[in-house]
Amino acid sequence: MKILVVNPNTSEEFNRKLEQAAKEYALPPTEVKVISPASGPKSIEGIYDEALSVQGTLDAFIDREKEFDGFVLACYSDPLVVYAMREITTKPVLGIAEASVHLACLLGNKFSIVTTNDRWEPLLHEAVRKYGVESRCASVRTTGLRVLDLEGEGEGAVEKAIEREALAAVKEDGAEVICLGCAGMSGFDKALEKKLGVPVLDGFVCALKLLELFDQYGIRHSKILTYAAPESKELTCLPSRFSKAYLKDR
Amino acid sequence: MKILVVNPNTSEEFNRKLEQAAKEYALPPTEVKVISPASGPKSIEGIYDEALSVQGTLDAFIDREKEFDGFVLACYSDPLVVYAMREITTKPVLGIAEASVHLACLLGNKFSIVTTNDRWEPLLHEAVRKYGVESRCASVRTTGLRVLDLEGEGEGAVEKAIEREALAAVKEDGAEVICLGCAGMSGFDKALEKKLGVPVLDGFVCALKLLELFDQYGIRHSKILTYAAPESKELTCLPSRFSKAYLKDR
Amino acid sequence: MKILVVNPNTSEEFNRKLEQAAKEYALPPTEVKVISPASGPKSIEGIYDEALSVQGTLDAFIDREKEFDGFVLACYSDPLVVYAMREITTKPVLGIAEASVHLACLLGNKFSIVTTNDRWEPLLHEAVRKYGVESRCASVRTTGLRVLDLEGEGEGAVEKAIEREALAAVKEDGAEVICLGCAGMSGFDKALEKKLGVPVLDGFVCALKLLELFDQYGIRHSKILTYAAPESKELTCLPSRFSKAYLKDR
Amino acid sequence: MKILVVNPNTSEEFNRKLEQAAKEYALPPTEVKVISPASGPKSIEGIYDEALSVQGTLDAFIDREKEFDGFVLACYSDPLVVYAMREITTKPVLGIAEASVHLACLLGNKFSIVTTNDRWEPLLHEAVRKYGVESRCASVRTTGLRVLDLEGEGEGAVEKAIEREALAAVKEDGAEVICLGCAGMSGFDKALEKKLGVPVLDGFVCALKLLELFDQYGIRHSKILTYAAPESKELTCLPSRFSKAYLKDR
Amino acid sequence: MKILVVNPNTSEEFNRKLEQAAKEYALPPTEVKVISPASGPKSIEGIYDEALSVQGTLDAFIDREKEFDGFVLACYSDPLVVYAMREITTKPVLGIAEASVHLACLLGNKFSIVTTNDRWEPLLHEAVRKYGVESRCASVRTTGLRVLDLEGEGEGAVEKAIEREALAAVKEDGAEVICLGCAGMSGFDKALEKKLGVPVLDGFVCALKLLELFDQYGIRHSKILTYAAPESKELTCLPSRFSKAYLKDR
Amino acid sequence: MKILVVNPNTSEEFNRKLEQAAKEYALPPTEVKVISPASGPKSIEGIYDEALSVQGTLDAFIDREKEFDGFVLACYSDPLVVYAMREITTKPVLGIAEASVHLACLLGNKFSIVTTNDRWEPLLHEAVRKYGVESRCASVRTTGLRVLDLEGEGEGAVEKAIEREALAAVKEDGAEVICLGCAGMSGFDKALEKKLGVPVLDGFVCALKLLELFDQYGIRHSKILTYAAPESKELTCLPSRFSKAYLKDR
Repeated sequence: MKILVVNPNTSEEFNRKLEQAAKEYALPPTEVKVISPASGPKSIEGIYDEALSVQGTLDAFIDREKEFDGFVLACYSDPLVVYAMREITTKPVLGIAEASVHLACLLGNKFSIVTTNDRWEPLLHEAVRKYGVESRCASVRTTGLRVLDLEGEGEGAVEKAIEREALAAVKEDGAEVICLGCAGMSGFDKALEKKLGVPVLDGFVCALKLLELFDQYGIRHSKILTYAAPESKELTCLPSRFSKAYLKDR
Repeated sequence: MKILVVNPNTSEEFNRKLEQAAKEYALPPTEVKVISPASGPKSIEGIYDEALSVQGTLDAFIDREKEFDGFVLACYSDPLVVYAMREITTKPVLGIAEASVHLACLLGNKFSIVTTNDRWEPLLHEAVRKYGVESRCASVRTTGLRVLDLEGEGEGAVEKAIEREALAAVKEDGAEVICLGCAGMSGFDKALEKKLGVPVLDGFVCALKLLELFDQYGIRHSKILTYAAPESKELTCLPSRFSKAYLKDR
Repeated sequence: MKILVVNPNTSEEFNRKLEQAAKEYALPPTEVKVISPASGPKSIEGIYDEALSVQGTLDAFIDREKEFDGFVLACYSDPLVVYAMREITTKPVLGIAEASVHLACLLGNKFSIVTTNDRWEPLLHEAVRKYGVESRCASVRTTGLRVLDLEGEGEGAVEKAIEREALAAVKEDGAEVICLGCAGMSGFDKALEKKLGVPVLDGFVCALKLLELFDQYGIRHSKILTYAAPESKELTCLPSRFSKAYLKDR
Repeated sequence: MKILVVNPNTSEEFNRKLEQAAKEYALPPTEVKVISPASGPKSIEGIYDEALSVQGTLDAFIDREKEFDGFVLACYSDPLVVYAMREITTKPVLGIAEASVHLACLLGNKFSIVTTNDRWEPLLHEAVRKYGVESRCASVRTTGLRVLDLEGEGEGAVEKAIEREALAAVKEDGAEVICLGCAGMSGFDKALEKKLGVPVLDGFVCALKLLELFDQYGIRHSKILTYAAPESKELTCLPSRFSKAYLKDR
Repeated sequence: MKILVVNPNTSEEFNRKLEQAAKEYALPPTEVKVISPASGPKSIEGIYDEALSVQGTLDAFIDREKEFDGFVLACYSDPLVVYAMREITTKPVLGIAEASVHLACLLGNKFSIVTTNDRWEPLLHEAVRKYGVESRCASVRTTGLRVLDLEGEGEGAVEKAIEREALAAVKEDGAEVICLGCAGMSGFDKALEKKLGVPVLDGFVCALKLLELFDQYGIRHSKILTYAAPESKELTCLPSRFSKAYLKDR
Repeated sequence: MKILVVNPNTSEEFNRKLEQAAKEYALPPTEVKVISPASGPKSIEGIYDEALSVQGTLDAFIDREKEFDGFVLACYSDPLVVYAMREITTKPVLGIAEASVHLACLLGNKFSIVTTNDRWEPLLHEAVRKYGVESRCASVRTTGLRVLDLEGEGEGAVEKAIEREALAAVKEDGAEVICLGCAGMSGFDKALEKKLGVPVLDGFVCALKLLELFDQYGIRHSKILTYAAPESKELTCLPSRFSKAYLKDR
């Protein structure tokens, strides 16, 4: 199967990490392509950043939708654009947060998410509640570090901060599984797992492997209500490609 | 006070209704301006439509943020852009769904929302849950009509469908208050109230009046965590106005 | 509009504070009268005190109901008498706790309540849960001080205790908005807001302003189920005014 | 042990029924006295009625508190006065709704409450939620009949209406246990149980037997936080007996 | 009435404690017999242990079901076998955890459970949630001690550890009632209650006394849905007594 | 990888269906063996049946645990034995209900379960609540048919009943995904999906594919708290294999 990974920020470093993880975990016949939108912010550290990434991300998706069999939106949050994508394709689209929390529930009684700056604590709590698994979530912990720090050289410090919060989640909050709460943390999972002695999930790998699973089992998301194809309508001052997307599933 | 109402779709009919309601309910010193973004869909009937409206809506907001004292985002949903706006302004921003459900809770034990096409049923249930008032929500009912039908001539039929569902919410679901679940329903409130004998809330009026209340009391949204000003970062292929918005609240 | 504020305890100091706040925040045409019942406890520090205040409070309300357009019951709790009043009037009646928590939800992701003696912690948690917004409540914190201390000279100490708990709510519990959890704290809001840098709500002002909003919008509480007018019945050894209240809404 | 049953309304018919049930189910050494307050409404059909019953009920309780070992407040609701009583005594006080729903949870997966007029549906749902067992409650159903109808001659009709709703609760809502939702229904339990084939609980009997259980096991309600003895304070225009109640547990 | 207490582990020490408590609290006419299964683990410290106890426990129960009027399954958890027993008898069967938590709710606003090894913290949280009373549970605290330590000589140390955690539950978690979270803690209740000043419940006594209450009131668990008698079916390599149990309630 | 599927009942028909599904969906290198325990009931229609299957199922598992890399417990419920197995192995163990509901959450907003006899309705609701996804569950619907009917010739009728309930779940309950709620329904998924136009999940396939995913990603369940290896203890009258299982993971 061919999987398109859309990293909604424009950080090439992130893409390298995701490509590396895809290389490591994708099955041999799976082809994985990682892209960033042509327009948007360098990182997504809140809702304003997310909002700035929406149009570019959708654009990149619509442009390539036909060539791929499944899609990962590689931002550890509950991105609006995942739902928009599901409305205009019949192929599976997964976010990396939802992928990881549902797998986490199958591996231990409670999971915690370790993420970057403080705003994600309320935002990811909301996401977990929307996904329905709030009773399984021990905590969302933040390192206080910025997303782009994850790219830099000081990775030793970043890794240490993540380890500290993950350990606290295990010792103080009752977490039995850790979810890495940022696409930029991709690749830290196994090293952290060794240190902590509990399963550590890289949301990107979770989403990637679930898409393979969906493909092998032949399942796709439901198109009858929440993700039904939208009725077409007049668009003003938007590229024609957005209009054509309405026609897709007719 | 000066209030900017951003209708995130491009329907002029909606704007007329909102202006009419503003005329009727705003206090004398309040100036209300209703605008639509320069780009975007004619109506918002789902998440794809919402996604297409994000950039234009933000653009229109940023362009005029300095001139106004408060903002209404006039789409009956939980719009991403409300949170984005809150991050980049210190002035109050309200959505019309959140405004109406919290007031509804003060007027009766349970409320129901009557809205348009079926997809809004799950989406507004999610919104109500995010706002925290799911235990106060009797039901979300849909007329099955499209948003743009609300503009058309057949308003008698639309009104009847809304009345039918609102009555069912009262009789079958235990609703004591009705929230009109679409900006395009603005203006139906008092007529429906007379027929049903229960309070009927126009979310736009709720948001407008709450902004006046905030202004008179001197309160604004909190800027310390969820709506804190985002750190600036590199933006690619986006109008410079979006970059400048980062600097705002420093 | 004419608003009657019923302070259910007999502390004149409280009434002075409420009158002061009314003077500051009511719109010019709004007339506000603050009264205490003829009988009852000097302060309300629990359910026994509340129970002792019920009959006097109702009596005072019934006596003046005709002359006013809206009513505030100025006790920061979920007072039984608010619901009793709603049954026997068609004009809006608001408690100050419910008013503040719903507005708090519109100003930040999570709010905390800072109140007086320890018993209010479980009692206000129950109230918040009944209002439906428990998922939005970061904490209820108590200063351990008695209600009547709020009247005394040592207000510096009281203010400091409130500030300490409010700060802890923000730093440790994730509160983004603070609700002052006692009518006797009326007037501390703006000073505390300045110190904390987050919105601080005086429940009395919230209720007062919401009544004005209800008046301007022309909305009242629902009379069809929970607050429906009760059937009249034989009363024994109670002032005849209580009997006549049954007949009101026929 | 000596149990005082306070029926907070002034209906002698109710008292007769409760005395009959006490005779049938109390252990031989248990003495049960049923009283009504000297003042108050003939029945309690809502919160206004409850409010009118508060002072008389408390008065009657305080007057006799010393002579008895445990107390039942015989109104199927979540009466304010139960909590007031708990604050000023160290002896156990039980409401009949809380008693029945907790026992119902031990007898079947889900229970339903069948009660009288419609207002009790939202009110008892709130009570069930406050007691914590909302996930075990299949439904609250109302017969639409008034409380005082339960006293009258047409008991055949009342019984039939209760049976109809109880049967619907079992067949349509998944109830496995029925709670009779009014003190005036006392005595219907076993007849209804025979017809339905599911356990039917008379809340008064539940409370009575639980008080005996508490007595035999030597347990009482906790006095450290929610039901702690209140600080004494100045009371205005209230019988001195209410003042003395403060001193009780020092 | 005749009550059979099945201690699902094979520890005779536990049985002695239970017999002692029964002697102290059972009414004179109540006969109580405490047994352990012929096969199974010496203690139940998790689900594997529980699983090993299931067949022996059921066997012991089926063997004596006819001779007794009610049954206690004396393991402080949510034992599978309680539900199995309810399916094949019409007589009441109670677990000791469910018995204690529902009584705890009647004695204070919030309760905590103090138990042994760490695994019980998540397991008992799940049980509390299944019983429906999670909003009433302040905490589940563990001493870190093993179940069998409760039998040994070092009871002073065990008692101290329980007291320490119970005190922390009261001081830090807001508990107003303590439930002893292991059958092997039977007998500690009154001593601990004296030290803490809050009600302390021995789940075994709770279950025993509730069975007496059920007997006196003439109530039994519901047999229409969750605990309905199962259809008989072919059993392979199991004692014939298990087959005959199917026929019971026909 | 080598997967052992333990069907906890003794129905060979079920095993055939599971083998067929494994053949269809397992990856080429995956070896799947389906077994039934040597002792136990022909079908599992409730908790008594489940209890009778526990010892045999554990026995069969322990006997072969070393030879396999992952385990499916093929009963659509929340089987006790899954948790027992997790305690005594470090290899992944999945139940088929948990596997299907978490995947269902990734495919649509709400899912429903369609199962066999009525008792499973409350039991599976409890399971869904324990898994944490109750807010995502539209309904649990039962066909009223017995488990073993699924084996018989009248499969047309069984299939029709399942289809009827699944359709009702979609049309009336808002389900967007259907989970087949019995291992014996394995193989109906794709046919039903075609008729309904929504994703239909066979829980067995879900578990099987998730085990492959776990293997490829190198993740296993957490062993630090809920599923930690139990301390060994004296076992009475049980095969020595059960004792040896304690030593396993030291």
